[in-house]
Amino acid sequence: MQGELEAALSVIARVQTALTVAGRTDAGVHATGQVAHLDVPPDALTPEQLVHRLARLLPPDLRVPAVRQVPGSFDARFSALRRHYRYRVCDAPWGVDPLRRYDTLVHYRPLDETAMNTASTLLLGEHDFAAFCRHRAGASTIRALERLEWIRDQPHLLTAHVAADAFCHSMVRSLVGALLAVGEGRRRPEWPASLLRSTARTSEVTVAAPHGLTLVAVDYPADDQLATRAQQTRALRSAHPLTD
Amino acid sequence: MQGELEAALSVIARVQTALTVAGRTDAGVHATGQVAHLDVPPDALTPEQLVHRLARLLPPDLRVPAVRQVPGSFDARFSALRRHYRYRVCDAPWGVDPLRRYDTLVHYRPLDETAMNTASTLLLGEHDFAAFCRHRAGASTIRALERLEWIRDQPHLLTAHVAADAFCHSMVRSLVGALLAVGEGRRRPEWPASLLRSTARTSEVTVAAPHGLTLVAVDYPADDQLATRAQQTRALRSAHPLTD
Repeated sequence: MQGELEAALSVIARVQTALTVAGRTDAGVHATGQVAHLDVPPDALTPEQLVHRLARLLPPDLRVPAVRQVPGSFDARFSALRRHYRYRVCDAPWGVDPLRRYDTLVHYRPLDETAMNTASTLLLGEHDFAAFCRHRAGASTIRALERLEWIRDQPHLLTAHVAADAFCHSMVRSLVGALLAVGEGRRRPEWPASLLRSTARTSEVTVAAPHGLTLVAVDYPADDQLATRAQQTRALRSAHPLTD
Repeated sequence: MQGELEAALSVIARVQTALTVAGRTDAGVHATGQVAHLDVPPDALTPEQLVHRLARLLPPDLRVPAVRQVPGSFDARFSALRRHYRYRVCDAPWGVDPLRRYDTLVHYRPLDETAMNTASTLLLGEHDFAAFCRHRAGASTIRALERLEWIRDQPHLLTAHVAADAFCHSMVRSLVGALLAVGEGRRRPEWPASLLRSTARTSEVTVAAPHGLTLVAVDYPADDQLATRAQQTRALRSAHPLTD
């Protein structure tokens, strides 16, 4: 996706600058609230012209709803305060609505969202999420999980709302996999949090399929705080190299 | 779709009876509220068992959310009082949300829904919709259009809500095609209704793509009215053979 967007921009705006992306999602994960930035020359197209040209050039699975000029201190990745994800699971005995099967996991057994929310609450706060992360050499797996909540939007549709300053690779999908085991009654609500004692990824957790996951929003501070935030994040990352 | 469902039922319930379907949609049209009936032997599986077995046997683009026993006088096609359709159009300059591109038409030029609703209102009531119908030998094209209304659900998402006792082949898509021409400003709001004077299909109307259209509901009378309604519909259809 990032490569396709960079290629389209190089055709349209004749800029070869690489994009900086807020949340580098795993393959198969969707993003409705992705944010990216790039530097363009002063004589570039207007934001409206860019939107129109990109709409015609990009494949239908990649859309750019808005383009705007930002302060020079804005960094899509390092200025971000937090990322918001959603994970959709349908537990109807008949399966998932065909029109939403692209972004919804089908789970034929009924899920107990009360147990899942009990387990989710125990995971909130700053922890080493090593058990839930794909290991990357030299990268920290300490994260501050700010929200993890399951809401039954429709009789058979459960949505997990997840927010943190940043996430490790496959972290949300691993948390969801552990919580589905709780929802099914195969594991007790205390089990996912008990894995936080682990310092390495555990094979006990099944990573939930990527297509149920969507990056829905990225929060940024006010314009006058962008530079400070980017500086803080960069300092933190050099001490504890993080993925997003 | 009907063939796939009949094949699955013949495997599961060992019944070779053909299904009777409420709304036989054109290829590429979706249905979230389709209704069908069939006769099963008294020793057949329970409705719950059928739902479970069908979920495992049917392809992911075909789901049966509910099965239930109905009075012997119920006829999915002839007992129906009316069919409800929706047509989704996105007029954002950047195109359509990738996750909804399967059931939403993309229309890059902005649409004026006030003009479209003015034109829609003029089409309501019982008319000969020949100009908007694919001709079928011996079939009437007289229909009672009960609802045709455009609602802008989101800044760039327009949904047409359409209801009638029954529809001819490609009728909703032709109406939508004519109304899009009004919404763009290429035609005046009086134009679609002026075509009702025609007794044959007109080449002036572009049939809108099927994937924006969904059959969302079929209305039936109370159980004690099912037989009377089916009788009435059958009498009407033999006088003026209709498609649904």
